[in-house]
Amino acid sequence: MVHSNLSALDRLLSQKLRKTMGEAPIRIVVGGTEGKSGSAGKPVATVVIPDRRTLAGLVLNREVTFGEAYSQGRIRIEGDLVKMLEALLRPTRSAADRSWYGKLMSRWLEWVQANTLKGSANNIHRHYDLTAEFYRLWLDSRLVYTCAYFPDESTPLERAQVAKMDYVCRKVQLRPGDSVVEAGCGWGALALHIAKRYGARVRAFNISREQIRLARERAKQEGLTSRVEFIEDDYRNISGRYDVFLSVGMLEHVGRENYEDLGRVIHRTIGDAGRGLLHFIGRNWPHEFSPWIRKRIFPGAYAPALTEAVRIFEPWDFSVVDVENLRWHYAKTLEHWLARFERATKRVTEMYGAEFVRAWRLYLAGSLASFRVGALQLFQVVFAGPNYRQIPWTRAHLYQEESRPAAAEKWTHVTF
Amino acid sequence: MVHSNLSALDRLLSQKLRKTMGEAPIRIVVGGTEGKSGSAGKPVATVVIPDRRTLAGLVLNREVTFGEAYSQGRIRIEGDLVKMLEALLRPTRSAADRSWYGKLMSRWLEWVQANTLKGSANNIHRHYDLTAEFYRLWLDSRLVYTCAYFPDESTPLERAQVAKMDYVCRKVQLRPGDSVVEAGCGWGALALHIAKRYGARVRAFNISREQIRLARERAKQEGLTSRVEFIEDDYRNISGRYDVFLSVGMLEHVGRENYEDLGRVIHRTIGDAGRGLLHFIGRNWPHEFSPWIRKRIFPGAYAPALTEAVRIFEPWDFSVVDVENLRWHYAKTLEHWLARFERATKRVTEMYGAEFVRAWRLYLAGSLASFRVGALQLFQVVFAGPNYRQIPWTRAHLYQEESRPAAAEKWTHVTF
Repeated sequence: MVHSNLSALDRLLSQKLRKTMGEAPIRIVVGGTEGKSGSAGKPVATVVIPDRRTLAGLVLNREVTFGEAYSQGRIRIEGDLVKMLEALLRPTRSAADRSWYGKLMSRWLEWVQANTLKGSANNIHRHYDLTAEFYRLWLDSRLVYTCAYFPDESTPLERAQVAKMDYVCRKVQLRPGDSVVEAGCGWGALALHIAKRYGARVRAFNISREQIRLARERAKQEGLTSRVEFIEDDYRNISGRYDVFLSVGMLEHVGRENYEDLGRVIHRTIGDAGRGLLHFIGRNWPHEFSPWIRKRIFPGAYAPALTEAVRIFEPWDFSVVDVENLRWHYAKTLEHWLARFERATKRVTEMYGAEFVRAWRLYLAGSLASFRVGALQLFQVVFAGPNYRQIPWTRAHLYQEESRPAAAEKWTHVTF
Repeated sequence: MVHSNLSALDRLLSQKLRKTMGEAPIRIVVGGTEGKSGSAGKPVATVVIPDRRTLAGLVLNREVTFGEAYSQGRIRIEGDLVKMLEALLRPTRSAADRSWYGKLMSRWLEWVQANTLKGSANNIHRHYDLTAEFYRLWLDSRLVYTCAYFPDESTPLERAQVAKMDYVCRKVQLRPGDSVVEAGCGWGALALHIAKRYGARVRAFNISREQIRLARERAKQEGLTSRVEFIEDDYRNISGRYDVFLSVGMLEHVGRENYEDLGRVIHRTIGDAGRGLLHFIGRNWPHEFSPWIRKRIFPGAYAPALTEAVRIFEPWDFSVVDVENLRWHYAKTLEHWLARFERATKRVTEMYGAEFVRAWRLYLAGSLASFRVGALQLFQVVFAGPNYRQIPWTRAHLYQEESRPAAAEKWTHVTF
């Protein structure tokens, strides 16, 4: 506790805010005057709140008010933004209880951002149809916008994204001649990699027009159009039969009200003899996604608990074969992205303005903090139908150098 | 369809029975007369049903009647028992629907075999307090009565059980000086192995008096009493604080009504900074355990779906780190056990009689068939509290020779 010169109302509000923050070692300054400080020693950062209105907003609806005011430059952070967010986002079951206003807002977001066919198209458009030029500024050269896999911590991002794609392919034992369907394909990196390195045929679905356009261009440039097809459509409209179902970083956009449908789609496309992999941001227990992230960054997003995701498979007698939590790999991926983003802020400001830069900084820093403290997890779930008979005897093959993709180059020229 | 000389009633019953069997290629002979045969070509076995009473019993309550009549020698099987059971046990969601009589029986078993403190003690006594002499006839020399881990299919059972214990230890990154609590320790093989090879201290709980007695003897013989303590008590009464919680093959005996309690016990014993592993027989979706197995072999048993088991961790913000499905390893383990059991039937008959031998043959063969067709799964779930900070960067260390236990021999003489 430090000395406070605030008015009685400001003091009350600042106490209430403090209460929602637990023991976080963060200094709060309201309108130039110091409010209550964290009880846990040396603060990692100071939050400068400009006025009573913002302070009251934080009490009523902490995450959204903070996100908006930070983006608009009204709230300033002095010190380490990521460390501050780590202190705030450290999960406790009680932290998941929001104020009545926060709950109301959350329900409202769920309603206006519902993942109907049309709703999903809008939700995806808002995030992924920003120009590829923007994403090129801070993603790897292949534009892989999901958690990378770092064989060791010092692996460069570029190689870690290729390692991730190979890891996914090894996990589903991709073989030449396999047919693969990918639900949510981004700018097509994984589909192209599979067609090129594993000699498999891929049909990849995505409702982001910009991403599909670029993916198709790449397929043409790389001479892969006979083996990879990019389809601008919703996962619910996937048709055809395949050996393998892959979805990397799409489940977060499906919405739990549609998980049953997704299970039906998976079974319809790979039947009882197929196998597949879901790669998604998850939680340790079921609770809603950050309302500010949903409002400004990822409309309609929901990160499921592992139990919720695994339930997708239950009606179809699919077996869960392997689950891996790659939470620390996403933290590392985000370290790379955030550092690259910070180096590109001048250009991003020219493109979208300073408010956009601050909002995206907060999103990237908040995601990094969330993976570090365990508020978010990253799960890869391998599953197989009851009639898939080639589950490998152990998982050792995932970690053997000789099974790595270089050896698969010979498949590049297989034709179908 | 084959020609049938049965009476009208027998024909009706035999048709009804046939319907519960789906397409299973099994020949049915009732009282010397051939009933309806499977429609799927060459039968893998013939079931000889002695009389109408047994036939009616099979229609009313298939599993229990079959189990009882087979054990008593009234039903005979001509052909391959395991293959026949595979055909019968292949899971379909509809197969989980039982007759009204079967459902009633199942509820009744749940009630009389409830896993209260006293109920569990009775349930465990009935199975595990058979003499160790009996289990020695067909288990490995260390008496490990859970799924082994076969680095390759031809690994002998003896080595595969040691490999499993080391695999479990590597999965929780056991280090010298760690304190470990084991819930359900059998005859103590894992606890002794940990104390001897990993230089950790272990307290192991079990409510089977016979198993605890033998485990204590072994600890004395091996001079490990300073590092391993065997306690005859229920997992619900575990006290003390530990770094690691292990449970290999006990969850099946907990009963899902006690999962919340188990979660509380785990959190109480390892707190937020601990880690652990649950190893258990599971299912692809939630449904009850075989009523005959519950009646005769494992009173009170329940094999949870992965979703049910993972829910144990949700109230405590534990993260699931790794899930592996070792179903084929349990099938292989059971091949060994069944073969050893068959070689020992003369001695077992002397000990417990012919009916016991047939019942245990059916149990072992039925388990083998269930793992082969996917009616049962074997999950190893690694979990960690929010403050456990040493999750390894990748799982590669699980598959590196140098991390194997021989290297840990040097810890054998560490004292505490």
